[in-house]
Amino acid sequence: MSVSVNALTQEKYRIPENLDDSASIERFLHQHEGKKVIVVQGLGFVGAVMALVCANAKSEEYAVIGIDLASEDAYWKIKSINDGLFPLIADDPKIDEFFNKALEKGNFLATYDPVAFKYADVVIVDINLDVQKESSEDAILKDFDVNLDGFKSAIKSIGSNCREDVLILVETTVPPGTCEKVVKPIIEDELTHRGFDVDKYRLGHSYERVMPGPEYIDSIREFPRVYSGCSQASADSVENFLETIIDTSVCELTRLEHTNATEMAKVLENSYRAMNISFAVEWSRFAEEAGVDLYAMVNAIRVRKTHSNLMYPGIGVGGYCLTKDPLLASWSRKTFFGSDSDLRMSINSVSINDQMPIFAFSRLIQEFGNLKDKKVTFLGVSYRGDVGDTRFTPVETLVNKVIEAGASIKLHDPFVSFWEEQKCHIESNIQNVLDSKPDLVIISTGHSEYKSSEVILKLLEMEQTYIYDTIGLLSNEQILLLQEKHKISVLGRGDL
Amino acid sequence: MSVSVNALTQEKYRIPENLDDSASIERFLHQHEGKKVIVVQGLGFVGAVMALVCANAKSEEYAVIGIDLASEDAYWKIKSINDGLFPLIADDPKIDEFFNKALEKGNFLATYDPVAFKYADVVIVDINLDVQKESSEDAILKDFDVNLDGFKSAIKSIGSNCREDVLILVETTVPPGTCEKVVKPIIEDELTHRGFDVDKYRLGHSYERVMPGPEYIDSIREFPRVYSGCSQASADSVENFLETIIDTSVCELTRLEHTNATEMAKVLENSYRAMNISFAVEWSRFAEEAGVDLYAMVNAIRVRKTHSNLMYPGIGVGGYCLTKDPLLASWSRKTFFGSDSDLRMSINSVSINDQMPIFAFSRLIQEFGNLKDKKVTFLGVSYRGDVGDTRFTPVETLVNKVIEAGASIKLHDPFVSFWEEQKCHIESNIQNVLDSKPDLVIISTGHSEYKSSEVILKLLEMEQTYIYDTIGLLSNEQILLLQEKHKISVLGRGDL
Repeated sequence: MSVSVNALTQEKYRIPENLDDSASIERFLHQHEGKKVIVVQGLGFVGAVMALVCANAKSEEYAVIGIDLASEDAYWKIKSINDGLFPLIADDPKIDEFFNKALEKGNFLATYDPVAFKYADVVIVDINLDVQKESSEDAILKDFDVNLDGFKSAIKSIGSNCREDVLILVETTVPPGTCEKVVKPIIEDELTHRGFDVDKYRLGHSYERVMPGPEYIDSIREFPRVYSGCSQASADSVENFLETIIDTSVCELTRLEHTNATEMAKVLENSYRAMNISFAVEWSRFAEEAGVDLYAMVNAIRVRKTHSNLMYPGIGVGGYCLTKDPLLASWSRKTFFGSDSDLRMSINSVSINDQMPIFAFSRLIQEFGNLKDKKVTFLGVSYRGDVGDTRFTPVETLVNKVIEAGASIKLHDPFVSFWEEQKCHIESNIQNVLDSKPDLVIISTGHSEYKSSEVILKLLEMEQTYIYDTIGLLSNEQILLLQEKHKISVLGRGDL
Repeated sequence: MSVSVNALTQEKYRIPENLDDSASIERFLHQHEGKKVIVVQGLGFVGAVMALVCANAKSEEYAVIGIDLASEDAYWKIKSINDGLFPLIADDPKIDEFFNKALEKGNFLATYDPVAFKYADVVIVDINLDVQKESSEDAILKDFDVNLDGFKSAIKSIGSNCREDVLILVETTVPPGTCEKVVKPIIEDELTHRGFDVDKYRLGHSYERVMPGPEYIDSIREFPRVYSGCSQASADSVENFLETIIDTSVCELTRLEHTNATEMAKVLENSYRAMNISFAVEWSRFAEEAGVDLYAMVNAIRVRKTHSNLMYPGIGVGGYCLTKDPLLASWSRKTFFGSDSDLRMSINSVSINDQMPIFAFSRLIQEFGNLKDKKVTFLGVSYRGDVGDTRFTPVETLVNKVIEAGASIKLHDPFVSFWEEQKCHIESNIQNVLDSKPDLVIISTGHSEYKSSEVILKLLEMEQTYIYDTIGLLSNEQILLLQEKHKISVLGRGDL
């Protein structure tokens, strides 16, 4: 018996063996006759929220079906949505608001049955496409590959079920060239095979710029969008559809000439960000060596418009995009376009960023000394301040290194109660992780709570300890205050 | 007999053998008794203009002496200044205005005699510090080194002449650590040797952000400044001095804790810029391969604040700073601070940027074909639009490649009459370079003139030719118009 565990409630669901869900789909659609049907494929961090946005579209009332696999990882999300619990914790109040509205209207169903595609006016592809990385022990990227099998079979399940005149909108971040070289041939093969006219369907690409956090919903609805179609007619269809869900009064829709262009723009955007972060990695180590404060330098330089987005030092990059998108791009350049060259700057950025927690660990050992049998408290496991997202968090590497070095650890995070990837519970009461008299407190995520005067006071009340700020969270005033009692190191700053 | 040629007038001057200029210095200072004396060391693109700014300081009347070497490269500048001709062409009208005011007041003298340092209240160091690069034929950076000998002897000439209580302000872009590890010991050695108290002199570092062009003067006077001193007293002295020449009502002065920090901030700033450019290099080649338009992508992405300074594709980087500053930084990290690691991202940026004109050439051959016996016209030799600065211009590499390929060339630039580095005259009348029926017109610098309707009309009047836009200067409308007659390629865009 296969089981899928609800990450929010820890409830266990039996995964159905019979994948026929057509009865509930038909019942749902019967209730919404006359409405256009949107099927969102993939109920992850993007798809689930995109489905909410569609169910509460600006200028059209849609019947929305979210579809994902009846797998261990995904089935619980389907069940959770249909049971009335949205499968993501987010501090954006609009998530609850939108989900509750959809529940009231009853226009949002989740399913695992691909028969749903049969009814779709629009299919939005929001599934994941991962990169397989091969790295050294020190997280140096040795090699990587992209396996399109899962993506292809997802596209095939659309093609073998969809209507002849469907609009397929790919939002997944893909290697540039994928719509033209992978999606289009698969869909047209399937349609031809089913005896359909291949001139009637529409295919386009548009990338979301979703930012999990307090403006989750608005990062879809009120954020500029870039889109394209694989023909003029397709691009027009995408535009017409997006205009019903994106608030074009506050943000622009920009059409690019080709799906290659929007696909490339997306990975370029994230590669640029990843590179800017890796730049800070190298310079923060240099600043430590030269005994100066990189944060102060960045502040002094950021006054220039040309340098306003220079990044601060930090423990590394997390999340789903920046850790892989540059590799998708480079893979495409060589595989889809036959180039002799890869995107070396972008690959190096990923490798440098992957190594950052290792550098953070080296500095720690250098400053603190041997960790054997020490008690270590981590403040924060999420990869981003004030967000409960642990996907590819760099804290994980640092935690593993500290454990390997023989320390015992406690983990705190106000936004994460269960750490999926490490399968462990996270303490939410900070007093509980400080009471244990840790030898070392590592500030590992930039949650606002940690710089509150309340937490600074708690730190001052502790026995003498060592504080390691890996993200420059503490202000100079707070450092001065804490130094009266504790030893402090800050990543990206020379000795204090 | 050594001769120095005035780059503006081609006039030849005999370099004096007797370097005693004390009589004219004393005469000059006698006329300005009671005024504080500033000596600016180095009369290049920064020093000459800095001297002008000091001679027209905001809130204090200084007597300013510019000093440079009695060498082939520099002597003519000294002579030119004293003869009433400023040694730089710039399209900033304030340059003429400031120079004329200084001539009227008679408070700006140029000399080659280091005895000038004897009278200085403030010495500003604006000499060059070069990097020696070793590159492959294809401009791949193989190795590089920094030779401090010239810099050290310049500092020594200050120390062996200066007053005990001088303020020395280093503005030269140096490897981080230079003030502390090189300048300070040399000055203190010299002062001690001369029987002086080494606690009285002041030493600081502040970097200019000079931008040759229409706001040359304001890029010094009205641009935020970062500064430091090698002691509290030194930092205070630097601050007091800068406040007399920088307009702090429109821009901030930011003090950093240590000379290492300001020195590092400067090279970091330029390394970041160089890296952003190299990013565009890689992606423009990818865009060409995938047949899409990188300019359109960049425009679509720049709407995001985090990506507002994403660079457009181009023929490469020129100028004095971005081509070497990242290397100064990396050299310092290994040499001054004994790090095992270099700054790999920054070094790679320089190497990639150096290769850009080679990539531009490959694309040209691929699109245009064999250049043997073809007539080629270059529009622009400067490295920057609307500026007459040819230092390390990437156009030089492309020009050389085109000549090597057997073509005959004509060069046009409205801002450059004589190309120093190539020792050749440049045509300023565009009709003269188009009349010769070139087989190929290469737009190589982003001068506004080239996108004027006047020039587009001239291009349309030509026989059928091939136009290669290496900097995305032409608008889509202009391309459509020109395509009616000519073939066109644009760097960073797929086939048009």
